[in-house]
Parts: sequence; C-alpha cells; structure tokens
Amino acid sequence: MLTLFTSPGSCGRASHIALEESGLAFEIRRIDFAAQEQQSTAFLKINPKGRVPALVTDHGTLTESPAILAYIAQSAPQARLAPLDDVFAFGRMQAFNAYLSSTVHVAHAHGRRAYRWTDDLAAMEALKRRVADNMTDCFELIEEAMLETPWVMGETYSIADPYLFTMAGWLESDGIAIAAFPKVHAHYKAMMQRSAVQRALAGEKSS
Amino acid sequence: MLTLFTSPGSCGRASHIALEESGLAFEIRRIDFAAQEQQSTAFLKINPKGRVPALVTDHGTLTESPAILAYIAQSAPQARLAPLDDVFAFGRMQAFNAYLSSTVHVAHAHGRRAYRWTDDLAAMEALKRRVADNMTDCFELIEEAMLETPWVMGETYSIADPYLFTMAGWLESDGIAIAAFPKVHAHYKAMMQRSAVQRALAGEKSS
Repeated sequence: MLTLFTSPGSCGRASHIALEESGLAFEIRRIDFAAQEQQSTAFLKINPKGRVPALVTDHGTLTESPAILAYIAQSAPQARLAPLDDVFAFGRMQAFNAYLSSTVHVAHAHGRRAYRWTDDLAAMEALKRRVADNMTDCFELIEEAMLETPWVMGETYSIADPYLFTMAGWLESDGIAIAAFPKVHAHYKAMMQRSAVQRALAGEKSS
Repeated sequence: MLTLFTSPGSCGRASHIALEESGLAFEIRRIDFAAQEQQSTAFLKINPKGRVPALVTDHGTLTESPAILAYIAQSAPQARLAPLDDVFAFGRMQAFNAYLSSTVHVAHAHGRRAYRWTDDLAAMEALKRRVADNMTDCFELIEEAMLETPWVMGETYSIADPYLFTMAGWLESDGIAIAAFPKVHAHYKAMMQRSAVQRALAGEKSS
C-alpha cells in the first residue's frame, strides 16, 4: 500500500494524479496547511522537511515531486507513465520535471512563501511584485522551447503531464491568464478530460 | 560522445565528476560566466535557459543536474553509480538530488544571484543576509536526517555523492564552516580522495 500525504492545490496534486493513472493501490492523507499541520510533530516524523508531498511506501518514505513521480512510473510499468526503456527520453522527462521543481515552483513560491528567503517585510513585497513576471518567463520558455503536443513528451503521456498541469493551475492566482500560452492552455484542457485527473480533483474536495 | 558544458565551481562540477567516474567518453566545454557566455546566442541555442550544466548527447541535449546525473548513471550501468535495480533506492537517491537542486542550490543562489527574484537593491541585500542561515538549516537537515555514511546512500557510492560534494564546497563562500557538520565534512574529505574527483578538479583549472 502507498500513502500520499498531500494538500489540495499543492504540488502534491501531480503525484495524486500519477497515482490515479498508475493502477497502484494507494490512499490519500490530507495535510491541513491552514492548521500548519505540515509542521506538526507527527508529520515531521514522516517528513522532517515539513513539506508535501510525501509518499509512504512499504520500503520507507519518499519526498520531492520529481522523485515520487518517477517512483510511481517505475513501480507501475504497465501504466506506461514514463519512457522506462529509453535512457535519453527518460532523462528529458526528468529534466522537464526538474525545471518545474527547481525553477517554476520556486518562482511561484516567492509570492506566498517569501518568508523562506527573508523576514524583511519590504523585501517580501518586492519579491511578490516580481512573481508574475518570473512565472511568465518560465511559461514562455515552456511554451516555446520545452512543451511538445499533445503531451509534454509528444505523443506519449507521462508523469511530466500532471506536474505541468499542477503548476499551470497556479497561473491564475499569480495574475496570469493561461490563455497567453496556447500550447499550455490546450494541454491543461486535455488534462481536464482525463478521468484520472477528474478523480484526483474530486478527491481533493472530499478528502 | 558526450559534451558537458559547465563552468568551474558551478553545480556542473557534479556532472563532471560523475562523467569521470562513469568510464564514458566525454569532453568538457567551459562556459565563461565572467564574459556572460551563458547568455550568448551560441550557448542559448544549446540551452535556451542560459544555464549550466548542459550535456550534449548523440540523441539531443539534457539539462538540469538531477536529470543529467541519472542519465550518466543509467548510461554506464557497469560503473554502478545508482541503484538501477531497486526502484525505492533509486527514488531515495533522486529525492536527495531533488532536494539539493530545488532547495539547497536555491538557498545559495539568493546570495549571488538574487537578481533572479527581484531588482530591488534593498531586497537583494535582505536576501543575501539570510543565505548563511538558510544554508545552515539545509545542511543541518542533511547532516541529521538525510546523509548516511560513508556515502549519501550508505555503503554504496552514487551520483548523489558528487552533487553533495559540489554544494558542500559552496559553504565556505556562504560564510559557513563545513566542520560544523561532521558527517558532511567527512564525506567531503572522502570525496577528495577519489581519483575521479581529483581529475575533475584538475580539469576545471586547465579547461
């Protein structure tokens, strides 16, 4: 059994969708950000970083979205969620996910979680002012240089798709219209048609 | 043939060491940060992100350290640079590398490259003031909760080791004594004994 600790709308959504796609048995445990549950003693025992997602497996706990996503794909090869037999294609998929994790997510986090890098209130405001520009730069690069169609890797759906979908879902809250990026927008709409995505979003509401 | 575009002392050092460990044929192309070569038209054709490392392969170009490192390990299975037959252990190694990429590297970058997130000079200074504290927090977590001995994954050396070594090498420039973290320090010294590390460091000086 796999247990995913996540929070609605967080980057954990990508792993939740990947689990829905995988056919693996899993359960979702919701972490309540409003109650600072990610910093609770109980959760810090699961993930000392105090972050979601965390995936508890029979072998131990995994953290970090790119690692969890690749683990899900490798654990369910029959679901074909990654190019497991093509080392270069797997690397390209991983590079896409690493960019989302280390650049796009970080750009977004400077809005709501600027306290990670400063406790100076004026500096926090300065960081927030730049978020829309930085997210626009990121999604322009994704649109023009990284995203194939209809899926991130082209004809074949992969774990990069729910991860992009999750971050594209943050654009509106960052003051950016997703329609400014036609390929990203089409990708988002195609994702919304997938039953696994619909199940994950419904699960977020009910968990 | 593999060509690694990197710069001395950058996070590309990890991929350089991994290539030295791998036995794969490769060449190093130095990108001159002082001359802003990473933003040159020629380099942007190789990596539109304008960052190092970038690994040019016969199949195309890979970016992002965690992706490049895993690619090297998967391309040279005989070098045993990753637990390729153990999906959970591979995931744990990837989680380690993802943490270095998306949290530790980002914490460090707020010192020298704060312009990525703001152009407000006072905010940049505020970000710089916090770097030592944030890097200390990161390395305390690595020391106490993440790093096994003698190597990151325990008895078996992996691509997580040169990546940790590279970032531990940044501590001094962030105003932190590596000796404050005994396991990280012992790891750093053990890395310095490896011939692949010595070759990579010598290569940085001569390239």
